[in-house]
Amino acid sequence: MSSEPPPTAAAADELAADLSAATLSKKQQKKDARKAEKAEKAAQRQQQQQQLPADAEDPFAANYGDVPVEEIQSKAISGRSWTKIGDLDADAAGRSVLIRGATQAIRPVSKKMAFVVLRQSMSTVQCVLVASADAGVSTQMVRFATALSKESIVDVEGVVSLPKEPLKATTQQVEIQVRKIYCINRAIPTLPINLEDAARSEAEFEKAEQAGEKLVRVGQDTRLNYRAIDLRTPTNQAIFRIQCQVENKFREFLLSKDFVGIHTPKLISGSSEGGAAVFKLLYNGQPACLAQSPQLYKQMAICGGYERVFEVGPVFRAENSNTHRHLCEFVGLDAEMEIKEHYFEVCDIIDGLFVSIFKHLTENCKKELETINRQYPFEPLQYLEKTLKLTYEEGIQMLKEAGTEIEPMGDLNTEAEKKLGRLVKEKYGTDFFILYRYPLAVRPFYTMPCYDNPAYTNSFDVFIRGKRCNCMRY
Amino acid sequence: MSSEPPPTAAAADELAADLSAATLSKKQQKKDARKAEKAEKAAQRQQQQQQLPADAEDPFAANYGDVPVEEIQSKAISGRSWTKIGDLDADAAGRSVLIRGATQAIRPVSKKMAFVVLRQSMSTVQCVLVASADAGVSTQMVRFATALSKESIVDVEGVVSLPKEPLKATTQQVEIQVRKIYCINRAIPTLPINLEDAARSEAEFEKAEQAGEKLVRVGQDTRLNYRAIDLRTPTNQAIFRIQCQVENKFREFLLSKDFVGIHTPKLISGSSEGGAAVFKLLYNGQPACLAQSPQLYKQMAICGGYERVFEVGPVFRAENSNTHRHLCEFVGLDAEMEIKEHYFEVCDIIDGLFVSIFKHLTENCKKELETINRQYPFEPLQYLEKTLKLTYEEGIQMLKEAGTEIEPMGDLNTEAEKKLGRLVKEKYGTDFFILYRYPLAVRPFYTMPCYDNPAYTNSFDVFIRGKRCNCMRY
Repeated sequence: MSSEPPPTAAAADELAADLSAATLSKKQQKKDARKAEKAEKAAQRQQQQQQLPADAEDPFAANYGDVPVEEIQSKAISGRSWTKIGDLDADAAGRSVLIRGATQAIRPVSKKMAFVVLRQSMSTVQCVLVASADAGVSTQMVRFATALSKESIVDVEGVVSLPKEPLKATTQQVEIQVRKIYCINRAIPTLPINLEDAARSEAEFEKAEQAGEKLVRVGQDTRLNYRAIDLRTPTNQAIFRIQCQVENKFREFLLSKDFVGIHTPKLISGSSEGGAAVFKLLYNGQPACLAQSPQLYKQMAICGGYERVFEVGPVFRAENSNTHRHLCEFVGLDAEMEIKEHYFEVCDIIDGLFVSIFKHLTENCKKELETINRQYPFEPLQYLEKTLKLTYEEGIQMLKEAGTEIEPMGDLNTEAEKKLGRLVKEKYGTDFFILYRYPLAVRPFYTMPCYDNPAYTNSFDVFIRGKRCNCMRY
Repeated sequence: MSSEPPPTAAAADELAADLSAATLSKKQQKKDARKAEKAEKAAQRQQQQQQLPADAEDPFAANYGDVPVEEIQSKAISGRSWTKIGDLDADAAGRSVLIRGATQAIRPVSKKMAFVVLRQSMSTVQCVLVASADAGVSTQMVRFATALSKESIVDVEGVVSLPKEPLKATTQQVEIQVRKIYCINRAIPTLPINLEDAARSEAEFEKAEQAGEKLVRVGQDTRLNYRAIDLRTPTNQAIFRIQCQVENKFREFLLSKDFVGIHTPKLISGSSEGGAAVFKLLYNGQPACLAQSPQLYKQMAICGGYERVFEVGPVFRAENSNTHRHLCEFVGLDAEMEIKEHYFEVCDIIDGLFVSIFKHLTENCKKELETINRQYPFEPLQYLEKTLKLTYEEGIQMLKEAGTEIEPMGDLNTEAEKKLGRLVKEKYGTDFFILYRYPLAVRPFYTMPCYDNPAYTNSFDVFIRGKRCNCMRY
């Protein structure tokens, strides 16, 4: 085993997907069969080699090996404490730690030395094995470590040390001098996705291409077919954690404003919105639908005296549109509130809500944002402490002055929205703003007309980076 | 209008539901039609009366009335602040306050005096109108208030005063001396549910029956058909608020233990559990199912390196069973975690989680629990700081000693579970405990056998008041 990328099962898989079975020649089929047989034998050989008992004559045999089944059957509680890889820093230097992670990379240097990079969530650390009687590390132990398959789950006990030079390949700037290494669960020798391939940025691909090197790209189909593996990429780890934090802050902010969290029915007897397509099913022999929106139920809760409610839950839309703004199933962050006097009360909640989420992510998800930025670079979101509120008329005027003619009582198309986003950013320095007082003509019939001009409505939309987030109508 | 219960539309509605249209005689139909016509005319009269402009000669005409539409069209922001009815206490005495609530009861005393009870969520307060030039209250204003329909939304400005005797009919022990009263939204004169009827306890019904009085019961069908009204009962207000707090604490506790909140797909291509019935639907022409459990996806997240995850979301089961333990749609509180060494790590999380939820509700939902207790009396839940853990064998032994013979390797039926709950409560003083080390024979094939005896498993269940909460298998 070497530190080179393994035979790219991911690429092979993609290729296989491209070739329909019907078009394969018999010759090709035979060739494939032989290839598969060969690969299987190789895998068997490798597995047999891995399952060999540790050398009986190795005095340090107890310091490494595959953990036997009974050990993972909850045999004993050792009371040992695990350190998170992400918590390993220079302060831990000299300390003995116990960590658990996935083998992201295994680099044999010689018979007496090897590196194993362990990954836990978004963090990686370099573990160093050097055969030495003092450390209780034998050459057999080094061999055991280098024979591990990538993405196996491994426990390492060792002493934290500071490297002489900054480490480029790992997130943590310390090393672990390994004393013990045990494999909890071995991954198959060749996985359909190589994590390093799946985690590369476009810039890395370009750089490699310029150097005449061809890197493997993991296609969307492969990622989705082996989702549990793809979920291990640092970017996905970061995305899921940020999603969780968005929900946390959404709830926390609204709870602090006396909202009550509710869960409304998803199996309903009719469609919840006129426009959107609906998933139909049978409920005890009667026709039923999946809820396209919690709207009606949120409103019933308000009529029911709950004053302010929110819901975080799935929304189902049988959309046939293939755009990134149409999804058949998504998690909706919904809120509804009683208005005392003026719909600006709602604007103020929305303003405070978004700003508090932006702040929370900036302050508490630094690592996650940096992780995503490495693979998919983005500009930090700019927003104001007090959100900018523009009337629709002001927006139209800005577009007009910039040379875009818009029907003043008509709707903004996607292009106009993007342009308005750019103009607002130039003028006000914010990616986030509220556009309000939309014309009645572009809003649904039930929108409340403005008291001073029934051609306009008490409604608003929220814009982030030139995209309308959602429609809010009052 | 009087303080008597209104003609019980609820009862009429129930009756109507009982009578199928097909069995109504023509005579009955004509009678019903005449009755409906009469009721409609009466309603029209009442509405006309209500819409009469305030007496032009009333010098205090500005202090009451129906709020005109333009006022609720977000005309102006007054900057006034509303006080919550639940916050009104003796400390507020002498202060001028502005409140908004639903008219729960309206009691005319004379032409010059009336009481209006306003309700906001679980709290009610008595508002007193006494005609007096000093207070700016005219007899016309008293008439306006007494003509309001029940459950209308009303704003009251007034001065908080202390009553001479404790108030039995309201939760708040202060009164509001009304200075201004405006109706934001009028309810129809006769609602299908009378809130007082819907909020009565069994004890109140019995007491009335003993006194020869017949009180109206609101049936389940009527409650569900007019859910938005039934949601206004104090008990429902309390239940929804407690549900929200359970979810809050569930999330808060697990987040503090490094869990990540996720949302897994609900539209899936196959059934998620073998046993339970599944809802089937078409997804772009292909057969799909609604998820019966997030189990598989939670496990994928663990394989995907998330270590600890939880989900709060809907679970769909096409169950045909009509018991209180079978629901076609419910909100699941799910968690999944990696085990470092021993499944007791999971027991400890579950222990801490439940105890923290119990404590949170006891400390922070006093009012909600009292509210429910008034309509549906219950004993406070007893639990230990450190949850009692019993082995299955110990449980069987307790039942045996109490005279119940159970097959030691067989499952506990509902009766045995209830009895075990009682025995544990007597012996250990807790309604909540964990039963672990179940026999393999009563657990699914994939349950991990115990390392020391494969006839038992690394599994446990949680019991509350003699009921198994959920199965947890590791």
